[in-house]
Amino acid sequence: MNVLVINCGSSSLKFQLINSESEAVLAKGLCERIGIDGRLTYQPAGGEKNVSEKAMPTHTEAIQFVIDALTDADTGVVKSLDEIGAVGHRVVHGGEKFAKSVVVTPEVKAAIAECNDLAPLHNPANLIGIEACESLMPGTPQVVVFDTAFHQTMPEKAYMYGLPYEYYEKYKVRRYGFHGTSHSFVSKRVAEIVGKPYNATKTIVCHLGNGASVSAVLNGESVDTSMGLTPLEGLVMGTRSGDIDPAIMEFIAKKENLDIAGIMNVLNKKSGVEGVSGVSSDFRDLETAAKAGNKRAELAIDVFAYRVAKYVGAYTAAMNGVDNIVFTAGIGENCALVRTKVCSYLGYLGITIDEEANGKRGEEIVISTPDSKVKVLVVPTNEELAIARETVALV
Amino acid sequence: MNVLVINCGSSSLKFQLINSESEAVLAKGLCERIGIDGRLTYQPAGGEKNVSEKAMPTHTEAIQFVIDALTDADTGVVKSLDEIGAVGHRVVHGGEKFAKSVVVTPEVKAAIAECNDLAPLHNPANLIGIEACESLMPGTPQVVVFDTAFHQTMPEKAYMYGLPYEYYEKYKVRRYGFHGTSHSFVSKRVAEIVGKPYNATKTIVCHLGNGASVSAVLNGESVDTSMGLTPLEGLVMGTRSGDIDPAIMEFIAKKENLDIAGIMNVLNKKSGVEGVSGVSSDFRDLETAAKAGNKRAELAIDVFAYRVAKYVGAYTAAMNGVDNIVFTAGIGENCALVRTKVCSYLGYLGITIDEEANGKRGEEIVISTPDSKVKVLVVPTNEELAIARETVALV
Repeated sequence: MNVLVINCGSSSLKFQLINSESEAVLAKGLCERIGIDGRLTYQPAGGEKNVSEKAMPTHTEAIQFVIDALTDADTGVVKSLDEIGAVGHRVVHGGEKFAKSVVVTPEVKAAIAECNDLAPLHNPANLIGIEACESLMPGTPQVVVFDTAFHQTMPEKAYMYGLPYEYYEKYKVRRYGFHGTSHSFVSKRVAEIVGKPYNATKTIVCHLGNGASVSAVLNGESVDTSMGLTPLEGLVMGTRSGDIDPAIMEFIAKKENLDIAGIMNVLNKKSGVEGVSGVSSDFRDLETAAKAGNKRAELAIDVFAYRVAKYVGAYTAAMNGVDNIVFTAGIGENCALVRTKVCSYLGYLGITIDEEANGKRGEEIVISTPDSKVKVLVVPTNEELAIARETVALV
Repeated sequence: MNVLVINCGSSSLKFQLINSESEAVLAKGLCERIGIDGRLTYQPAGGEKNVSEKAMPTHTEAIQFVIDALTDADTGVVKSLDEIGAVGHRVVHGGEKFAKSVVVTPEVKAAIAECNDLAPLHNPANLIGIEACESLMPGTPQVVVFDTAFHQTMPEKAYMYGLPYEYYEKYKVRRYGFHGTSHSFVSKRVAEIVGKPYNATKTIVCHLGNGASVSAVLNGESVDTSMGLTPLEGLVMGTRSGDIDPAIMEFIAKKENLDIAGIMNVLNKKSGVEGVSGVSSDFRDLETAAKAGNKRAELAIDVFAYRVAKYVGAYTAAMNGVDNIVFTAGIGENCALVRTKVCSYLGYLGITIDEEANGKRGEEIVISTPDSKVKVLVVPTNEELAIARETVALV
């Protein structure tokens, strides 16, 4: 079956068409500037990337252009919509309602809408994408895969904040965690690679991208993760602060004459390694700058790696031990320096790294030595493939 | 020499008179409701506790009553002020200016005042206490001991937040840490007990009181600690939230129609184990309630211990190992249940606990078994004695 995987933002839409038997990507692309003007980027497997300006007043036009491109006589990869068996949608926030992926129904859509105020920028856009597909592809089953679902196994002691309990009762303020599709995909793959049952392994997943989170996966279940109510908490990220003293918000608000929205904008968009370094949110730029002697770029990398190492240490305690530590996503897959720095803190766990293996970029590989007491791996994540698999399993 | 140790709040003042040779407390007490009406509690060593209502419009009157009580013909412990050789003041925030205790000079007072906006509730009160003592005890040397000083050895990667760098440059926004006098006192004592050089040990101090913090002390120097710019960050405390997703503040502000000051009030005074349990901020009450079947009291204890264990795990990574873990302060010294729960996560470090030793209350004791790979101890803290020692060393 061919599955159209869609990740819909407020003014953008990423897509991949994946064949579920071969797991090959048949075509992929991106709609941008939806509601502004509109631009489609489309690339069939093995073919040229094509960028075209197209008027996209709403997501419905954008998805129509995606369908047109996929079924185009020259550059398309399927003959008609009939060859698309299902659509899998990434949805950011499933709240406490969704611990698994589900087929879209009116009730499911209503439940997603009820989570809107937990993810005001994302969930409404995700719903728009679902409804546009429903109108353009009537009869094709739609599945939603939640970024939060995998972490719904967290125990109460891990998801409750030290806040008045009524905030949980009234507003569902708790830790949810994100990147669940990736943490699930990667931790499962680790069990296969090391040849141990998924339900009898302790794995820490370091999903290090522009957004970044760590999770503790005990016997196949997420028991803790560094992102919280929102994706702001936890690691120092590209432009997000991660953990800070909450009192800093009041302090900075007074000093800079900002309101809470103004502070949130700084914490989400002007902080992280970009804020520390003043150079970039991109680790390639940071490495280059650090090598050229930029002290703040070096500091940003050190702050980032140190925070990752502390979370690995914390989650080792959370699980009373660890069998596997895995790096994934842009930085995790490609930045040997960050992996080296993180592992430099972990000798006490009996970890030793094979620096030659660690020098490889972006491939699935064990980077610890054979005698290392904890296996350390790099496993490229593939959220689109994970969504396609979840989708096929449900339709 | 007799040292008067003073811990001055905005409307209160705690004191102890300590003989530095014997390290005995000669008398101790408390002034309350300064600026409102005034109450003095005074107790000479081995004597009765006496409470009296006395008009204390300012801290100067309060300190005069303290001097009167200490030199009283019947219940006093010294004949005259001449027998008080020095005064040691606890000061909360020394910023980056003070990495050590110092003798008070006009320059020192100015530097403390410059830290006022980092600790607006505490530093001004501390200064008032210093000036009241200067006016009533002219010629007696005054020493200031900072809660932040011990942590000034933290490396940059530990004290820098993932925030725009200019907040550090302009406003000195960074991690400072608190309870430094206690973390220093207790970690030094641990080295003596285990018979290892202080400058060659890795110790994690869990200072667990109504305010609570963990520190990583590597070779005699604090390299990380859980409190930050202010004492709000880190562990779940009596009524303080500790770490939360910073985005929760905006979320709750909207839901509860609160401004930043209103949120800060909730995070400081209505959160922590009291907020979670709805029972109390006092662990004795929580234990009693949990034993009687109160699920939220049980949850609060679990959340508290789990967070401590995660910090212990994180700081083990920060130091690439740990030799000693020590519990101190009210809960750390007296609550065997919390110690048991924290250590239940730490088996992977080769820790085993002697439950009989752990059952003792409030005494200096090693609670790990002889074959435990990491020593776990209880060491009662004594911040007043530490301040007296620092004071004597400088005068």
